[in-house]
Order: sequence, then structure tokens, then C-alpha cells
Amino acid sequence: MSAGQSMNVTWHEHKVASADRKKLNGQKSCVIWFTGLSASGKSTIANTVDHKLHAQGKRTYILDGDNIRMGLNAGAPMLKDRYGDEFATRFGLGFGATDRAENIRRIGEVAKLFADAGIITLTAFISPYRIDRDNVRALFKDGEFIEVLVKASVETCEKRDPKGLYKKARAGEIKNFTGISDPYEEPLKPELVLDSDNKNIDQLADDVIAFLKAKGYLDA
Amino acid sequence: MSAGQSMNVTWHEHKVASADRKKLNGQKSCVIWFTGLSASGKSTIANTVDHKLHAQGKRTYILDGDNIRMGLNAGAPMLKDRYGDEFATRFGLGFGATDRAENIRRIGEVAKLFADAGIITLTAFISPYRIDRDNVRALFKDGEFIEVLVKASVETCEKRDPKGLYKKARAGEIKNFTGISDPYEEPLKPELVLDSDNKNIDQLADDVIAFLKAKGYLDA
Repeated sequence: MSAGQSMNVTWHEHKVASADRKKLNGQKSCVIWFTGLSASGKSTIANTVDHKLHAQGKRTYILDGDNIRMGLNAGAPMLKDRYGDEFATRFGLGFGATDRAENIRRIGEVAKLFADAGIITLTAFISPYRIDRDNVRALFKDGEFIEVLVKASVETCEKRDPKGLYKKARAGEIKNFTGISDPYEEPLKPELVLDSDNKNIDQLADDVIAFLKAKGYLDA
Repeated sequence: MSAGQSMNVTWHEHKVASADRKKLNGQKSCVIWFTGLSASGKSTIANTVDHKLHAQGKRTYILDGDNIRMGLNAGAPMLKDRYGDEFATRFGLGFGATDRAENIRRIGEVAKLFADAGIITLTAFISPYRIDRDNVRALFKDGEFIEVLVKASVETCEKRDPKGLYKKARAGEIKNFTGISDPYEEPLKPELVLDSDNKNIDQLADDVIAFLKAKGYLDA
């Protein structure tokens, strides 16, 4: 038997299935998609949930602005130096509606790969448009996509304003700012709503973990 | 203390570091980037390595044409139905040099996320251009990117031709086919060269695993 023949014969037998990866990790994988206003607490809650699950030996990962906008979904200015102007113009992501849709689409596709790899995947993006989130949901099987609305009033978020973004938006220095000059479309049927006006981060993280536990995600 | 204040205080403490994820998995993470002609054995070797590592309890994942071209790097025809013509034209990937560069760039960025998540990540793409592979390498720290040349002559690959692609390329039905009508640029300094003309899949997979073991990737 030649190498060519043995290559064809062994292909299917040797493929590790997604179920095998989940079993090895002792968990069901899913995407926990946090959505809400800037400063509603998405990233902080996601990081706290991640930390608590990791401490329990669960395999997790977070996709957020820090690791996505600087890499996979970089804008033209970041791509220009290495790839040149034409490439950067063609592929760099901006902040218009179409580019925002592509931003969320790519994140959804990457989250799907992580879920396929058996990882409990947390994402923390404002993702203000219902249609963009619903398009991501459509990529997943029932139960794999957990939409979590981090509910906080604009007033609460504006009071926190850790990066001074609301101040800049009110001053007109940032255009198209969600909640001020751009709409935020709440999910109609989120799997979970977190009351970020009235509960602290630890309580909200525990609400997420209680949900995962009750639904069986933390067992193989 | 308000929820807003506690949010700011707890942010940094609760972030799980990449080192913590690797430690939990009992391995160092890396990207094993297989490159070579169509039918050289990239996917089959990657799947066999994946299978063997998984059986040892290692946390692994494969990025290949099956899960990338149908999702993250879909072409315009696939995007059109859900997102409309304008979106599909703007963001769908084709097969020109620029689009191929973006294809490889995105795969590199996703591989980087997987490595950050503590996963031993295998990729199986022809990736014929040196500059595209070198741009991916530049994303990683020393030792995190392992370039593996799956070396097989065009004759060997053409004899295997499991999908009949070489036949179509010779008949002129496929344009820009790597090795026939488009160049393949071998890596100048790959971490590993696999002799796919003369060894079978199992031997080649074992060569990869021996390399990983010798270099300490399979221990935390």
C-alpha cells in the first residue's frame, strides 16, 4: 500500500469529534454572548465568570475588544504598515453599519470554532443590533448560544463611565455612540437578563454560573 | 461602594492569564502550521497528530478548509443569502492574491487566539506564499509558531489526487492551481520538514509528536 492509499483510508477514522473534545473537558461547550451598553459591565462580568469557572477546572476563553479589534478585526490604520494601503482599505474594519455587521459575524464564527473545540466561550461586545446577534445565533445548534442581556440604564452607565466615553459622546467628540446617539436594541428573548443597575459583579457572575449549572453545561 | 466602583476595582484581579490556561491543560500551547501542495498530506497528518495527542489527554484543535472556508472566510456566494449583495461583495473572500493574503491573515489571528487559550492548534492550508506565512509567524512569540513543510513532489501529489483536482488543473478547468499553474514557495527555515514522498501518515504524525515532545510542548 502506498502512502497515498493509506492517506485516504485513514482520513475519517482519525478525526476527533467535537463530542470527544467536550468529553475530555468534562463540560458541554457553548457561547455565552454578553450584550449591553458600554460600561454596563459585560467585560467585567465575563472575566469574573471566566475566573470562577477556570478555578473549577473548566476550559474557557473570552473574546472581547482587547483581543479582537487589535487582531482579527483590525481597522485599516493597523493593517496598513504590514500589508499596504490597498489591502488595508479593502479589509480593514470601520464603524459603519456594514462593517459592524462583519465585525459581529466574524466574532460569531470564531466563537463557533471555540465551541466546536469544546471550550465554554464568553464574548463581551456591545453588539447593539438585534439582526447581527440573531445572525450569530443562527450559526449554532439549539442550546449552544446563550444570549445574556447585561441590563443597566444609560444613567447607571454614564455614572460609571470608566473610560470617559459617555462624556466625550455628550460633548459630540464621539459620533454614533450606543445609547446616546445610536440605538441599542434589547434582545427580545435572551436566555438570561442580568440586573446590573442593582446587583454587584460577583452576584451577577454567580447568576451566570447558576444558570450554566442548572442547564447542565458544567458536566460532560 | 456602588456596583460601578466595585466593577473598576475587581477588573484586573479577575483576568485569567494565558499561562493559567496552559497550566490547567498541562501543556505549552503553539500553532503547528502545516504547509505544502494539495494532496501532500497536510490535513491527514494534522488529523492523525490531533487524534494521537487527544488520546494522550492533550487539548488540541484543527483549523482547516472544512471549518474556515464555510464560515469565517466564506466567499461572496455563501454570504449573499443572509447578508445581501453589497455586504457579500465587500467582505466575501475570493482567490486573488490579496484575498488569499487576507484568508491566511485571519487564520493566523484565529490560531493566535487558540494558542492564547492554551490549545495546541494545528492548521492545514496550502498557504503557498512565503510572505503570507511570515506575516503569520510575526504574530507569535519565539517558539509559539511551528512551520511544518509537508514535502511531496508534484508527481506524488498528482498520483494521489484524491479529489481529482490535479486532473482538472491539467485540463485547464481550474486556474491558478498551486504546483501546476501557480507557484509554491517552500519555507526557507521551517521548524520541521516531513518527507511525504517516502514515509506513511503514521510515521509522519509520529515525527511531529516526537518534535513536540523533544521541545517540551507536551508538558506544562
